[in-house]
Amino acid sequence: MIKIGILGYGNLGRGIECAIRQNDDVELAAVFTRRDPSSVKILTEGVNVYSVDDVENHKDDIDVMILCGGSATDLPKQTPEYAKYFNVVDSFDTHAKIPEHFEAVDAAAKASGHVGIISVGWDPGMFSLNRLYANAILPDGKDYTFWGKGVSQGHSDAIRRIDGVKDARQYTVPVPEALDAVRSGKNPELTTREKHTRECYVVAEDGADKARIENEIKTMPNYFADYDTTVHFISEEELEANHSGIPHGGFVIRCGSTGWENENNHIIEYSLKLDSNPEFTSSVLIAYARAAYRMNKEGQNGAKTVFDVAPAYLCAQDGAELRKHLL
Amino acid sequence: MIKIGILGYGNLGRGIECAIRQNDDVELAAVFTRRDPSSVKILTEGVNVYSVDDVENHKDDIDVMILCGGSATDLPKQTPEYAKYFNVVDSFDTHAKIPEHFEAVDAAAKASGHVGIISVGWDPGMFSLNRLYANAILPDGKDYTFWGKGVSQGHSDAIRRIDGVKDARQYTVPVPEALDAVRSGKNPELTTREKHTRECYVVAEDGADKARIENEIKTMPNYFADYDTTVHFISEEELEANHSGIPHGGFVIRCGSTGWENENNHIIEYSLKLDSNPEFTSSVLIAYARAAYRMNKEGQNGAKTVFDVAPAYLCAQDGAELRKHLL
Repeated sequence: MIKIGILGYGNLGRGIECAIRQNDDVELAAVFTRRDPSSVKILTEGVNVYSVDDVENHKDDIDVMILCGGSATDLPKQTPEYAKYFNVVDSFDTHAKIPEHFEAVDAAAKASGHVGIISVGWDPGMFSLNRLYANAILPDGKDYTFWGKGVSQGHSDAIRRIDGVKDARQYTVPVPEALDAVRSGKNPELTTREKHTRECYVVAEDGADKARIENEIKTMPNYFADYDTTVHFISEEELEANHSGIPHGGFVIRCGSTGWENENNHIIEYSLKLDSNPEFTSSVLIAYARAAYRMNKEGQNGAKTVFDVAPAYLCAQDGAELRKHLL
Repeated sequence: MIKIGILGYGNLGRGIECAIRQNDDVELAAVFTRRDPSSVKILTEGVNVYSVDDVENHKDDIDVMILCGGSATDLPKQTPEYAKYFNVVDSFDTHAKIPEHFEAVDAAAKASGHVGIISVGWDPGMFSLNRLYANAILPDGKDYTFWGKGVSQGHSDAIRRIDGVKDARQYTVPVPEALDAVRSGKNPELTTREKHTRECYVVAEDGADKARIENEIKTMPNYFADYDTTVHFISEEELEANHSGIPHGGFVIRCGSTGWENENNHIIEYSLKLDSNPEFTSSVLIAYARAAYRMNKEGQNGAKTVFDVAPAYLCAQDGAELRKHLL
C-alpha cells in the first residue's frame, strides 16, 4: 500500500480523500492543516488530522505528500519545502511561473533524494500531455485550447469584489461556431472574443444599482472587457439551487498536415466534461502520486512533470497486464 | 541527426519518408525492400534503395529501423530478427498476439542491447495511451472505442474475394446515436450492431449477379453478419474518383465517476479524424523512433510499448522548452 498524506483540506484535499477510496493500492495516512486540527472533520474513519507544524515528525509514515495549496502563494513555498522530507505532487497552475517553480522543486528534491511531480491536473496536466503528443505527431500544425463550459473561480471572485455584489458565479463558455471552424480543419485565426463567452450569475445586495454592477463587470480589464459577457441577476436561492456545482472541462485540438506536399489533413481532439473540477484534478493527482512513489523506489529523484512520467507508472497493474488489456 | 532506415516501401514506408521531411532532427538513411531495389522509386533524392538481404551491412549507418511490414506474417519474424542489429519500431496491430510479440522482441533486443518499440500507431498506439490515461484517472468507469468513419482494408479485401466483384471499398461508420448515448454519460451497454454500421462501395464485373453479391456480403460471418450493412454498386470510375483515399479515425471515450459516493460524473474523450491512415501512423512511428534512439543512448534496451515511453522523449525540444511552451 502506498501511504498518502494530504496537506491542505479544502475542495482539492477532500477530492484526494475520495480518490484514495477508489484505488486499492493507496491509503490515506494523515491529513495536515494550517487550521486548528480539532476543527477539521474528514470523511475517512480512523485517520488523524495534524497541524502542518508537525509534518516533519511524520516523514517516515508517508510515501507521497499531495500538496493541496493555492498556486499564488502556497505552492511556490510549500512544494520545495516539503520535497525535503517527502515525495511530493502538486497542481501548480500558474503557467508563466512553471519554469522557476520547476527549478526550485528540482533543487530541493535532488538534495533530499525525493521525486517531486509538479503541475499535475488537467490544465496544466492532461491538456498539456495532449498538446505534447499532438505536436510530436503533427509537427506541421496549429494548436487550439478551449475551456468550459465551466466555473472560473478567479472570475467569480473578481465579480464578488464589486461593490453591491453579495455572491456570484462565472461560467467560461466556448463559442460553438469557433469550435466548429477549428474542427472543420480551416485553421482559423481566432481572437479572444471569438473563442469564449462569459456568463455571470450575480446575487446583488438589496437596493444595489444593478446597471452599475453590470457595467463594472462588462468593462473590467483582463477579466471581462475582451469578451462578450452576459450578466444575469438571480436570487441567493437560485444561485444555491442551480449554480453550486464546480463543473468544468474543455477541448485541446490540433490540426495538422502530412504528405510529401502536406496534402492530407488530420485533426486530433481531446476533451473533458467534468461534473467536479477539484475531484477530477484529485484523481489525476492520485495517479501521479503512484508514479512518484514508483519512480522514487527505482532510484529516481528531482522535479518531474507529466511529460517525464512514462504512462505505465500511473496504473496499479503491471506491464504484462496493461499490454494485454489496454494496448 | 537521427538516421532512419525504412524496411518495406508500401503506403506506410512512403508515409515514413514524408514524415521524415517534416522533422528537422531526423534524416532518411536508406530504404530496404524485398523487391528488386532497382524497381523501387522513392521520393527522396540522393538516398539509396537496397535489398533487404543487405541489411546487416548497414547496421552502423542506421540509428533506428522502422519496420513497415504486415502484422499477419511479416512483423512476427522481422521485428525480433532486426532487433539484433538495430533499434527498431513497428506498428504490430494484432491485439491478441501483442504479449507473445513483446516477449520475442524483448529477448532479441535485450541480447543485442537495442530498444524495440512495438505496436506504435493509433490503435494500438494513441488510442491505447488514451485508454490507459483515462483508466488511471477514473478507475470506476467504462471504456468505449468507436472506429471510423474510415476505410477498413481487411473488410474491403473480404468483399474483393467474392466471385463477380472487381473492386470494393468498405467504410466502418460509428452510429451517431450510440456516440451520443455514451457522451451523455448513460453508460449504455452496446451490441456490435449498435456501435458501428458498414458501408460498402462495390464495382461488379459485367453481368455479375448483384443480388447474390449483396447477399454474400451481408451474411458474411465475422465481417458483416453482425452489422447493419449497406451495399452500393458503383462504376470503376466512381470508385476511383470518390473512394481512392485511405481516411480513418475514431473515438476513445471513458465515462467514470468520483466523489465519496461516486456522485460526480466525468467524460474523457479522444478522437482522431484522419485524411490518410498510413501517413498518420507513420507520423506516430517517427516520434517513437526519436524516443527509441534517445532511450537507447541513455542505456536502455529491450522491448517497449507506448506505455513505457515518457512523453518528453517524443519531441525534438528539450525539457525546459517543453515546460515553457506546452505545459
